[in-house]
Amino acid sequence: MGTAFEPRDPDYEQRVRESFARQGLLATFAAELRRIEPGKVEIEVPFSSGMTQQDGFFHAGVGIAILDSACGYSALTLMAAEMRVLTVELKVNLLAPAAGDRLQAHGEVVRPGRNLTVCRGDAYAVSGGDSRHVATILATTTSIAEGGT
Amino acid sequence: MGTAFEPRDPDYEQRVRESFARQGLLATFAAELRRIEPGKVEIEVPFSSGMTQQDGFFHAGVGIAILDSACGYSALTLMAAEMRVLTVELKVNLLAPAAGDRLQAHGEVVRPGRNLTVCRGDAYAVSGGDSRHVATILATTTSIAEGGT
Amino acid sequence: MGTAFEPRDPDYEQRVRESFARQGLLATFAAELRRIEPGKVEIEVPFSSGMTQQDGFFHAGVGIAILDSACGYSALTLMAAEMRVLTVELKVNLLAPAAGDRLQAHGEVVRPGRNLTVCRGDAYAVSGGDSRHVATILATTTSIAEGGT
Amino acid sequence: MGTAFEPRDPDYEQRVRESFARQGLLATFAAELRRIEPGKVEIEVPFSSGMTQQDGFFHAGVGIAILDSACGYSALTLMAAEMRVLTVELKVNLLAPAAGDRLQAHGEVVRPGRNLTVCRGDAYAVSGGDSRHVATILATTTSIAEGGT
Repeated sequence: MGTAFEPRDPDYEQRVRESFARQGLLATFAAELRRIEPGKVEIEVPFSSGMTQQDGFFHAGVGIAILDSACGYSALTLMAAEMRVLTVELKVNLLAPAAGDRLQAHGEVVRPGRNLTVCRGDAYAVSGGDSRHVATILATTTSIAEGGT
Repeated sequence: MGTAFEPRDPDYEQRVRESFARQGLLATFAAELRRIEPGKVEIEVPFSSGMTQQDGFFHAGVGIAILDSACGYSALTLMAAEMRVLTVELKVNLLAPAAGDRLQAHGEVVRPGRNLTVCRGDAYAVSGGDSRHVATILATTTSIAEGGT
Repeated sequence: MGTAFEPRDPDYEQRVRESFARQGLLATFAAELRRIEPGKVEIEVPFSSGMTQQDGFFHAGVGIAILDSACGYSALTLMAAEMRVLTVELKVNLLAPAAGDRLQAHGEVVRPGRNLTVCRGDAYAVSGGDSRHVATILATTTSIAEGGT
Repeated sequence: MGTAFEPRDPDYEQRVRESFARQGLLATFAAELRRIEPGKVEIEVPFSSGMTQQDGFFHAGVGIAILDSACGYSALTLMAAEMRVLTVELKVNLLAPAAGDRLQAHGEVVRPGRNLTVCRGDAYAVSGGDSRHVATILATTTSIAEGGT
């Protein structure tokens, strides 16, 4: 947090974009990558009625999915070129109903590691110029060699 | 776990079904309620390419969304008629890639309370007769009066 | 985070100190309150051989206990005079061995609420002028009326 | 859960006992190993006034410390002889005040792995013949070669 991280692979942005583009769920959500920096990734989804919970707001599952991806990709920006990222576990606190035109997830690396990388992040429901903090995540990711399981 | 719970509202099943039907995300996932008992709910989604992660398996966000709902609805089965349920927080461990024709989430109440109910659950990727344990959840829900925020 | 919180009870510091003084475990750890502000509390313990894990460093249980207390007391600083605080749940990532002369826990409120307050925090192992980030916590607390259970 | 695990090292019990004996905090708590089986470990501590929270019950930190150890050692029972165990992260829900003569932690492996092992567990406050479920844990451990960091 506040720490500058040095990427091992200069093509980290391209790797994030390629992986992102292969995710069917993120396409269903019309999710977009808004920011990719070493150790930091932001993802945004526009509201649609196919993503609601029972009160018509964004379902927590949408926020958690993009928080998970934002955290995982923030970890991926710091990994070597032949590695990919898997989420080991995540914990999310839901802070407020996610009522808004858009939902944004900010993920960042807390502690990078050869094997395990710890990430945190926050989700915001945005309407016009207003932004509301609706969720916070703490997650653990692992890196595995491409082609491995 | 193994404990039998007594519902306060005999119409608990109907309340779960009505809330479930209002969730746009669960409709997008073609999710179905498979089991509703006092303190236990199961939800299942069939595979589709709009729910995948980068390797073509179910995205973790799908599993977490239905685990969250299965836990929340297991809590709702034990609440008074005028209450509704909100997830306070959840923690999920992802155990294996969710490769399968269907994804099932089993949620159950660990400790019911007036205010807070603790739930746990497990997700399984199912293909034909095979079932693989792919995720486990521990979550906290709260009850609020209908119409409240 | 970075938000300034307004305490409802001007005697918040006194209430934290009195509750702290009643905790036998914190006395066993020779724990000290280093900082009490609205929404922020820091606790420190000096190293002793009665608090070690198998490699002779601070046991994770020590760090988690003081992180829990730092989070709970940061929530208590914002509660009304007649309320007390209980931890509902916590999640901790252990980032590095807690090798040091002292262990510090910093807790802060992320989102205060009437009923539930979400907190986060970090633990540092300190040796001379060096400080190492060894753990991070995300926790949920609840407030109950004094005398209640 | 319910699964029988096969230990890779027949001397798993001895390895758990040796590691346990090196933990200063567990000695401070007068903790005892009650059960060691492949994938399952139980630890118990007797009540003392040096382990209390502000109401005179067991401090959550005591329960979490022995839950962490019970989970970690349940993972260690399944590891190869040259490996040791580290806790990556844990999440605990506190279900009830830990009022009792003794506090018991039961840990068990949910999913063993070469690198990461997921465990769960429960803590019980016991008084005479009464046992009360006071906490539940979900945790991730990792194995590293002896001598490694």
